[in-house]
Amino acid sequence: MPVITITLIEGYEAEFKSSLCKTLGNVAKTYTGAPPDGVTVMVNEVKGENYMRAGLHRQPGPPPADARDVVKTFLTTMQERDLNAARDFLHEDFTMTFPGGVTMKRLEELIDWAKDRYQNVGKQYERFDRVFEEKTSIVYCYGTLEGVWLDGSPFSGIRFIDRFVVQDGKLLDHQVWNDMGEQLMASR
Amino acid sequence: MPVITITLIEGYEAEFKSSLCKTLGNVAKTYTGAPPDGVTVMVNEVKGENYMRAGLHRQPGPPPADARDVVKTFLTTMQERDLNAARDFLHEDFTMTFPGGVTMKRLEELIDWAKDRYQNVGKQYERFDRVFEEKTSIVYCYGTLEGVWLDGSPFSGIRFIDRFVVQDGKLLDHQVWNDMGEQLMASR
Amino acid sequence: MPVITITLIEGYEAEFKSSLCKTLGNVAKTYTGAPPDGVTVMVNEVKGENYMRAGLHRQPGPPPADARDVVKTFLTTMQERDLNAARDFLHEDFTMTFPGGVTMKRLEELIDWAKDRYQNVGKQYERFDRVFEEKTSIVYCYGTLEGVWLDGSPFSGIRFIDRFVVQDGKLLDHQVWNDMGEQLMASR
Amino acid sequence: MPVITITLIEGYEAEFKSSLCKTLGNVAKTYTGAPPDGVTVMVNEVKGENYMRAGLHRQPGPPPADARDVVKTFLTTMQERDLNAARDFLHEDFTMTFPGGVTMKRLEELIDWAKDRYQNVGKQYERFDRVFEEKTSIVYCYGTLEGVWLDGSPFSGIRFIDRFVVQDGKLLDHQVWNDMGEQLMASR
Amino acid sequence: MPVITITLIEGYEAEFKSSLCKTLGNVAKTYTGAPPDGVTVMVNEVKGENYMRAGLHRQPGPPPADARDVVKTFLTTMQERDLNAARDFLHEDFTMTFPGGVTMKRLEELIDWAKDRYQNVGKQYERFDRVFEEKTSIVYCYGTLEGVWLDGSPFSGIRFIDRFVVQDGKLLDHQVWNDMGEQLMASR
Amino acid sequence: MPVITITLIEGYEAEFKSSLCKTLGNVAKTYTGAPPDGVTVMVNEVKGENYMRAGLHRQPGPPPADARDVVKTFLTTMQERDLNAARDFLHEDFTMTFPGGVTMKRLEELIDWAKDRYQNVGKQYERFDRVFEEKTSIVYCYGTLEGVWLDGSPFSGIRFIDRFVVQDGKLLDHQVWNDMGEQLMASR
Repeated sequence: MPVITITLIEGYEAEFKSSLCKTLGNVAKTYTGAPPDGVTVMVNEVKGENYMRAGLHRQPGPPPADARDVVKTFLTTMQERDLNAARDFLHEDFTMTFPGGVTMKRLEELIDWAKDRYQNVGKQYERFDRVFEEKTSIVYCYGTLEGVWLDGSPFSGIRFIDRFVVQDGKLLDHQVWNDMGEQLMASR
Repeated sequence: MPVITITLIEGYEAEFKSSLCKTLGNVAKTYTGAPPDGVTVMVNEVKGENYMRAGLHRQPGPPPADARDVVKTFLTTMQERDLNAARDFLHEDFTMTFPGGVTMKRLEELIDWAKDRYQNVGKQYERFDRVFEEKTSIVYCYGTLEGVWLDGSPFSGIRFIDRFVVQDGKLLDHQVWNDMGEQLMASR
Repeated sequence: MPVITITLIEGYEAEFKSSLCKTLGNVAKTYTGAPPDGVTVMVNEVKGENYMRAGLHRQPGPPPADARDVVKTFLTTMQERDLNAARDFLHEDFTMTFPGGVTMKRLEELIDWAKDRYQNVGKQYERFDRVFEEKTSIVYCYGTLEGVWLDGSPFSGIRFIDRFVVQDGKLLDHQVWNDMGEQLMASR
Repeated sequence: MPVITITLIEGYEAEFKSSLCKTLGNVAKTYTGAPPDGVTVMVNEVKGENYMRAGLHRQPGPPPADARDVVKTFLTTMQERDLNAARDFLHEDFTMTFPGGVTMKRLEELIDWAKDRYQNVGKQYERFDRVFEEKTSIVYCYGTLEGVWLDGSPFSGIRFIDRFVVQDGKLLDHQVWNDMGEQLMASR
Repeated sequence: MPVITITLIEGYEAEFKSSLCKTLGNVAKTYTGAPPDGVTVMVNEVKGENYMRAGLHRQPGPPPADARDVVKTFLTTMQERDLNAARDFLHEDFTMTFPGGVTMKRLEELIDWAKDRYQNVGKQYERFDRVFEEKTSIVYCYGTLEGVWLDGSPFSGIRFIDRFVVQDGKLLDHQVWNDMGEQLMASR
Repeated sequence: MPVITITLIEGYEAEFKSSLCKTLGNVAKTYTGAPPDGVTVMVNEVKGENYMRAGLHRQPGPPPADARDVVKTFLTTMQERDLNAARDFLHEDFTMTFPGGVTMKRLEELIDWAKDRYQNVGKQYERFDRVFEEKTSIVYCYGTLEGVWLDGSPFSGIRFIDRFVVQDGKLLDHQVWNDMGEQLMASR
């Protein structure tokens, strides 16, 4: 039975509003347990000249990128080993934690660390999930790894999951879990 | 600048509404990039007698449990090896996938599988995250494992992450990743 | 898809509001052709101290009687031949038109006119319908007549329909059609 | 004092909205007894992309025909004896009841039945009234009949009233009362 | 924390709406003591065809002139000694009260009265303030006078204040205070 | 035709809300020129637990005093020569300007200055007007002075006007005009 109205200054794309409505509706539905038919979401668009807060009219800038897209682009640059581009995505307090609990801060450290584990690696993504926090977005993605071990033998289908904390379009934290250890152990 | 109004039939707890407002506000803030001060959320409560859909007044039942609480209670029952209680949380299509890609359907299978890996295991949780989907909620939790290996030696601080899909209060899917393989490999 | 909100000063009975919501919903549904699930009606109640028009707070008096109830009570008083009570329901411009196009203004005329048609008559009502006009309500009711002819023979099941125009709780116009003529003709 | 807001997906004609506002206002005024100046009705139009129910955007089709227009068109086709066109207006459960309580289902029956009553008949309509029900609309119309009796003599000014139940643009029920019997009786 | 929504029939200039929002926001802020960030004002514009009161659509005419502009124009015409133009601004009940409590009704009286005080006078305005009443607006303006005394000596910087009551674009009352008396006394 | 809704967290006195509605209505009426009947103001009260801005629920403190009451109380303390109490009303940047353009900052200066003008003075107030600014309120009051001149002769009915700028309950500026100079000049 929830009826949600969100007032926005006009100018957003239909796709943006549709996604926003969907998410707000999902939240309301999840919280209340209302049946799908009982959840209505409406966007009330007002012109900038019709909205005033603190005595000032407002004109929203372009909406920030979806944190999942930030992560996807970062992952692509890493896949392409374009470290300069990838580095632009890192918050100054960026930290990453890899299997075994290895903690690093710079992408170069990661490249070095990986050299002892495989010749190369690629990722097949099954899904990206997004969590809405007050100041950050959290993105989870998981799927399988494929690549070539140090001895030249190929691998594929190795399960992995990544967790990213994204703030203002930058990666603040990156944690990785995967089954490489399981795989190596099993293959011995 | 988003102003959100959600109309609910009255009767929800203050804490419930506060959490709902917080989440809706986080969603709106994340989508629009508005400053915190620019996000207003209001609950408009109406009596059941003042709300009619499809010609019928509505009286909402108690809201469904937070999927994170469903997962926490399930994890507690598993920790206590109360399989009967744990089983009540499983959707009839429940599947679980454990490190190495092992897929199981019944908790007894899991118990059997674990017997070859450790004597016992416990979990320290660092955080639970919730994702709002249309029909399901997805819960991620991660932290560290502690316990006793098969050879009687203790372990702790081993990183893990769980992903649950929760539907109507039941677990539909459970995926697990952890660093046990890494740890075992390293210790050899 | 229509969502209707009606703001009222608080104090109306639940039953009143329910009926109002139902009617508003029926109107919206009829006009738009929306499916039942897509029609939401909400009453927004405000205290008298929270409502001001033309610089004045308002306190609504009791709502006027449903015009169908006005008509029902009038019909009962007529059935009981309580002309004094019945007369109180008549607007000063009251007119009635009976089968054959007989037009009268006073109840006594009606009594006289009926004397030449039957010894007595009663009504079984099948249904009352209400039409909402700007200044008046129109009430239709129909069903069957039963009673005794002038010759002492009984009759029943004779179809009739009444149309009333009600203004400010008074009857402004009353038109009657029935099958008495058909019946008499058939019985000859 | 009622203030009504009806939210519609944009695209309706001004005339449609005006009529809808008028009817909603009449309902609110009739229920509450508020003075005309105290009844405000506003249409809040949202784009389809700004409205979501059950996770779906909606685009309303053309509104269904006013039941009074359905009835008027049916009556015209009948007047013109265009039985094929008239038949298209009949619901599969259509029933009609004519003076004397004659019940028929097919238009041909009606033609036959009328043959014994007059050579031809036409209608002058004084007024059409509409009643809003949940699944149906009820239409009343009344006025006078004119035509030629079986003996070739003309008649006119004979009072009649019709009651139609309209569902999804089809006639479900048609009841007729008139003063023909009265007239015939009087003329004997 | 106040959130104000004002529904207007569309067609007003952006500047008009901005000023209206600003004033409504100032009122709400002043009454509640809310911080600036906590005061939101939104104009909800509806088409004339989407607004109905007392069963009628409305089309607002041009908004009345700001009473401060009425006063400013009047003062300019007076400064230019265009009495005909100035007279058009006077309500038929116009009264003016000048220093010493002199009360006059016609501009000619004022001209006569002034002849005994100075050869000519001009005004430098520091500020115009507006007060919103139910039927009138009150305008205060103050600043300094400059001109030539009867003896030909110049003066300037003499403080004055005017108070105007404006109704329907006409001046109903004009009161004047200034330091001319102080100045004359001091100069003796 | 303006319809104003102001959402407030519940807890304000009826009198406060009534005055707020009146002022908002006066503003809307003045701007648009709408007839009195066409101006509706509604307070939508929400519980603190139903309102969230910047992720926080809000609980409004008591509303600030009406600036006219601040001025009135200050004027009373001055009349009673309770300088300590009066001083509490002064903003640290307080300035006052008296007839002849005398500028002072401390009340003692005013007392000294007045000693050369009259033995004592009292005020009869005709009216207090309030102007709503973004950070301040401006209060005008006018009426007549009465008292005793330095030579012991009484005076009364001398016109005066005060203008106060009030910020956060303190007086920031005080300007005075009156006819004392006129009166003295006239009496010579």
